[in-house]
Amino acid sequence: MAESITLYTAKICPWAHRAELALKESKLPYKRFEVDLANKPEWYAPKVNPASKVPAIAYGGPDVSPDTPSPESLKIAESGVLIEFFADIAPTTSLLPSDPVARAQARFFIETVTSKFAGAFHGALHRGEDPAEILPVIELIQRLLPGEGGYAVGEWSIADAAVTPFLARAEVVFKNDLGKYEEGRGREVWGRVEREEKYKRFRKYFEDVKGRDSFKETFYPEVVKEVFTRRYARAPVAAN
Amino acid sequence: MAESITLYTAKICPWAHRAELALKESKLPYKRFEVDLANKPEWYAPKVNPASKVPAIAYGGPDVSPDTPSPESLKIAESGVLIEFFADIAPTTSLLPSDPVARAQARFFIETVTSKFAGAFHGALHRGEDPAEILPVIELIQRLLPGEGGYAVGEWSIADAAVTPFLARAEVVFKNDLGKYEEGRGREVWGRVEREEKYKRFRKYFEDVKGRDSFKETFYPEVVKEVFTRRYARAPVAAN
Repeated sequence: MAESITLYTAKICPWAHRAELALKESKLPYKRFEVDLANKPEWYAPKVNPASKVPAIAYGGPDVSPDTPSPESLKIAESGVLIEFFADIAPTTSLLPSDPVARAQARFFIETVTSKFAGAFHGALHRGEDPAEILPVIELIQRLLPGEGGYAVGEWSIADAAVTPFLARAEVVFKNDLGKYEEGRGREVWGRVEREEKYKRFRKYFEDVKGRDSFKETFYPEVVKEVFTRRYARAPVAAN
Repeated sequence: MAESITLYTAKICPWAHRAELALKESKLPYKRFEVDLANKPEWYAPKVNPASKVPAIAYGGPDVSPDTPSPESLKIAESGVLIEFFADIAPTTSLLPSDPVARAQARFFIETVTSKFAGAFHGALHRGEDPAEILPVIELIQRLLPGEGGYAVGEWSIADAAVTPFLARAEVVFKNDLGKYEEGRGREVWGRVEREEKYKRFRKYFEDVKGRDSFKETFYPEVVKEVFTRRYARAPVAAN
């Protein structure tokens, strides 16, 4: 029998979302525990992840409630580690191709796209940089995608799990013009992505990843909108 | 027959060294091309790696000289991608354990130790931060290492390939007190690592990784010393 898995995650967090997407696609059963990042349970760091971050899993051990983790289960953290782990243990589905070159291409996609897209997205959201910084990364994604359609390396893989959470949050954030950047600029930039011919291949890819059940079951756009509206609500324009 | 491999690398670069260590341990034959990072060949970015970084490999294709790379070979870049690739294609040796949990532990070691150690080391070397910032990372390494001896996950693996290049460069840099930090501080901190009882497990590990042929054949301490002496030579004390 497969070992039990408890995923410690948070709806807002794109890193945690990577793990949950891959786990959902693996078809392995798991328990889900939502960690309130603003008010973490006091047992979380000592008993699950000393770094006090999500995602993490408890793997194996006795059948316990997620909020009383057993010392007998293995604890594994870091989203990049977890998606590879789920690919290694997924019994029937393939989360990574078996061909070494395709595996390398998947990992290259993960490594280069994540750092660049997350950097540009978080730079705009949290530090007020120009949202247009995402556009060259979208062009990079297009160059890496197979021209004929399909996911990052053809079939859906952990490469898509790694990147989709950032794309999906960017859509919510920019369409609602949330963040520290110049007002109106998020909506403007995302509008270009939605309309311009040059981003057509990206749009097809983004529709494909969002169309999967694994995505629909693990993404909470209203949470993303609410959290960043609270954090970055723009001051109402003064009446005079 | 195995596909040919040409490794584009640079003796000074710890990221490139990761790939060469893993490749050497794989026992796969390869050609080595030293890229002069200060004066890269003009064909390097267009024909090997658009990001213009090392390491990268040319894999397969016709038998050509490394300085005239063929469009028919596959090009793969990024050290983290390459060490996994070598683990995937290594025919007889095991660069990663087969047990999924041990594989996750190897990847966790790579991910957490590299970012923290490289951050502390480069922070001291290039930005003048306190070399003592490496000490908590050395303690982290000790906590992750198996208590009874051995490498990061028991047998030597790509986890060791990923981390050793940074440790080895730190030793050369700090023992020679090279870098932007306060004079004398590198030697002092490395002296503590070499002497204090609390770093004993780390010292054993460091001796073990440095003792392997793969390391001796791929590390050029005199290059590290020369490059950073040139870059960070301390001004001679004025005569008066």
